[in-house]
Amino acid sequence: MTTSNRFFKKNKKLYLSDIFRKLGKKNISKRKIIENINNLNSASSNDISFFNSLKYLDLLKKTKSKFIITHKKYESIVKQYSKPILVENVHKAVAQLSELFFPDSYDDAVDFDVKKLNKKKFKNVKFGNNVLIGKKVKIGRNTIIGHNTIIESNVVIGTNCIIGSNILIKNTLVGNNVRILDSTIIGKKGFGFFPDQKKNIRYPHIGMVIIEDNVEIGCNNTIDRGSLSNTVIGANTFIDNQVHIAHNVVIGKNCIITAQVGFAGSSKLGNNVSIGGQAGISGHLKIGNNVQIGGGSGVIKDIPDNTRVMGYPAKDIKSFLREKK
Amino acid sequence: MTTSNRFFKKNKKLYLSDIFRKLGKKNISKRKIIENINNLNSASSNDISFFNSLKYLDLLKKTKSKFIITHKKYESIVKQYSKPILVENVHKAVAQLSELFFPDSYDDAVDFDVKKLNKKKFKNVKFGNNVLIGKKVKIGRNTIIGHNTIIESNVVIGTNCIIGSNILIKNTLVGNNVRILDSTIIGKKGFGFFPDQKKNIRYPHIGMVIIEDNVEIGCNNTIDRGSLSNTVIGANTFIDNQVHIAHNVVIGKNCIITAQVGFAGSSKLGNNVSIGGQAGISGHLKIGNNVQIGGGSGVIKDIPDNTRVMGYPAKDIKSFLREKK
Amino acid sequence: MTTSNRFFKKNKKLYLSDIFRKLGKKNISKRKIIENINNLNSASSNDISFFNSLKYLDLLKKTKSKFIITHKKYESIVKQYSKPILVENVHKAVAQLSELFFPDSYDDAVDFDVKKLNKKKFKNVKFGNNVLIGKKVKIGRNTIIGHNTIIESNVVIGTNCIIGSNILIKNTLVGNNVRILDSTIIGKKGFGFFPDQKKNIRYPHIGMVIIEDNVEIGCNNTIDRGSLSNTVIGANTFIDNQVHIAHNVVIGKNCIITAQVGFAGSSKLGNNVSIGGQAGISGHLKIGNNVQIGGGSGVIKDIPDNTRVMGYPAKDIKSFLREKK
Repeated sequence: MTTSNRFFKKNKKLYLSDIFRKLGKKNISKRKIIENINNLNSASSNDISFFNSLKYLDLLKKTKSKFIITHKKYESIVKQYSKPILVENVHKAVAQLSELFFPDSYDDAVDFDVKKLNKKKFKNVKFGNNVLIGKKVKIGRNTIIGHNTIIESNVVIGTNCIIGSNILIKNTLVGNNVRILDSTIIGKKGFGFFPDQKKNIRYPHIGMVIIEDNVEIGCNNTIDRGSLSNTVIGANTFIDNQVHIAHNVVIGKNCIITAQVGFAGSSKLGNNVSIGGQAGISGHLKIGNNVQIGGGSGVIKDIPDNTRVMGYPAKDIKSFLREKK
Repeated sequence: MTTSNRFFKKNKKLYLSDIFRKLGKKNISKRKIIENINNLNSASSNDISFFNSLKYLDLLKKTKSKFIITHKKYESIVKQYSKPILVENVHKAVAQLSELFFPDSYDDAVDFDVKKLNKKKFKNVKFGNNVLIGKKVKIGRNTIIGHNTIIESNVVIGTNCIIGSNILIKNTLVGNNVRILDSTIIGKKGFGFFPDQKKNIRYPHIGMVIIEDNVEIGCNNTIDRGSLSNTVIGANTFIDNQVHIAHNVVIGKNCIITAQVGFAGSSKLGNNVSIGGQAGISGHLKIGNNVQIGGGSGVIKDIPDNTRVMGYPAKDIKSFLREKK
Repeated sequence: MTTSNRFFKKNKKLYLSDIFRKLGKKNISKRKIIENINNLNSASSNDISFFNSLKYLDLLKKTKSKFIITHKKYESIVKQYSKPILVENVHKAVAQLSELFFPDSYDDAVDFDVKKLNKKKFKNVKFGNNVLIGKKVKIGRNTIIGHNTIIESNVVIGTNCIIGSNILIKNTLVGNNVRILDSTIIGKKGFGFFPDQKKNIRYPHIGMVIIEDNVEIGCNNTIDRGSLSNTVIGANTFIDNQVHIAHNVVIGKNCIITAQVGFAGSSKLGNNVSIGGQAGISGHLKIGNNVQIGGGSGVIKDIPDNTRVMGYPAKDIKSFLREKK
């Protein structure tokens, strides 16, 4: 499955001067072309990137990016590796530049290009009633699509998939043999914004959702697309009903996620992770391989491979059960 | 935004004798007109009110209501300020009288007056496919309404709003610049009833939902309308996915409510409150301004201004983290 | 209400030899007819059954089944009462045989037999817009069905019911006077499967959902049908919004289940049980009559009659509150 982004059109040509102007900085005349904004590790030499925490020092040392948005307090570090562009609020600047590169990424609440299905366009696909399909949607053979389901423009769905009824899919690449159950919503923007007393400023979401082969996703799930990176559900992972997966979460292969589990943004799970019902995973955590998380747990720190945890906050399951006796 | 109730037609003329008859009390002939049933603090001098807890003694002292439904045990207190009408079960009597004043408030499960959209009625509003719109709906300019969305009769939506797909809105006033994401349900009756071994008796819901300007409400939320008072979401408050907000809850301005949070009925939040994912707020609580509630917390008592709490039951965050070490 | 299964067609005639072949065992020629696969207590003398835990020894002693799927370690016990058929993985064998008896039970993700409503078929039923109705659906008089709702084939709904909008009902028998609120999904397969590194193997779901008289089910609920037995909601039980009820759960009469509660599979509740918001009930538990479970609790063991519990894991409410002081 290709994972290039089909969903947001990028502004073709931006100069460093456009970027300075957007950030409200003194204009510069240098006509250096900047192709994109990207994470330190994904940025090419023509991309601008950003640095906002010493946690990412190793990535800074290796980045190809030549211009790094950062705060004054990191200036001396950043300038050892790249050219710092100083701003007051790094996240806000990244949001502003993402909007500059992807002007339509804020404007995707409803895809008005969807139309009542033209069945001739899709061979060997079985459709229910009242299906709405956007432009340039691709659906593989032997896939079925249930009633009232909306597949927005540019979505790609593989072969032998079962997509239920009342589903909304946007900004998503779906593999083969995937099953998505009724009333689930995949690919809408995440809950990211900068609080402001009058009117909060929304964070851009130019990422996608990538669902690998043989995945099952239950009813009434909400899986948000990534902001700069992608939200990923690894192959053969099964997810129960009423699960919430926030932006940028990456779930490994062969995981089992039970009902009503919630993930805050940007956490990363290994393979073979199982999570009991109603557990919650905080943001920006790293959960190892073969981890088992008990139902109702609240995970607020990283968990190493091959560990069983339970409780709130979650700890080793044996200590938890001993204490609770 | 006007907040008078457009949704339930009130019985125009009721006499005190109608009320006594409904409560199964001995008939009286006095032709005193009673205009409405209301809380102690909202009641006018022609409204009937009710008193069921010493918690509301201050309100009783100041009420304009001249007739107060109450239990025998409060008779001596109530009669110092107003004329008590004694009943066995105050809540049940209030339910019975609400039904008397608003006979159609029990009968709003489905609005059969909605029709396929007549676009000419709404200027400068953009609609998706299969939208159903009730009678006397008002929608402001530059608002968009997604596919399959149902806007029931008398709902008012402001300007520059984004209403997603598969949404159901009833008994609700929506301000300007509001964004409501897909599959959310706003304004249905709350979960209020009197248990009865054969057939529970439902509580009336004659309140509305009021959503102030610049609010964002995520996907798959359920926001119930009030029973006697209104459910309110304050300006610039942002709410994530899969949140449940019960009847009569009042949320202040600039709050941040993360995914899968749940509110029981009648709690009141101040401004600038932030609540982490999966936290639960019990009923009838008062949460102050600038309060931060950690993810997964269970709040079972009032929280003063400027406090950070976490845990189940929620307590000061420092004590929580110290104990859990 | 009859509770015979209208939803899955059973293979009419199966021989013991078919069963051995399906299990990959050495073929046998004996032409013994086997009518069904069933639990120990429900199996007739022509049904095959299974034994996988000493917990069910009492049922084994009384079973009418003459052929029991089991593991080698239980062989000596089983053969005292019946003829053991040894397999490596009992659950997997049961899944394989269920599929053999009910070949279409895996294939019900979308009912393509639903059609736009023919109103003549249903007398004294009031329908909203865009309703889809399957084959052989029965709906009682004075019932109303909201907009965009899908009632799949063979579903039976009683009299005086209120079924809201955007609802999906399949494999379900609904009693009289039942109210189901908007966007709820009832009767889809449960979250049952055998993990497998390449491609998980789904468990069959040939059970139904049975909803007794006077029940209320809130918005955005997911109630899964049973695998071998049924999921049951007892008379006059009221359920709030965003509740998840997994396969085979049996809820008694007059229960009150508040918002965002979750049930793992196969637990059984008595009558008059009340459960506070966001509580979770683990799988295979027995909760007695008149039990009260506090909001946010995590129940991981059986609870006797007339008990109040709270906490995670849930314990007697007095000890919980004492410890938390």
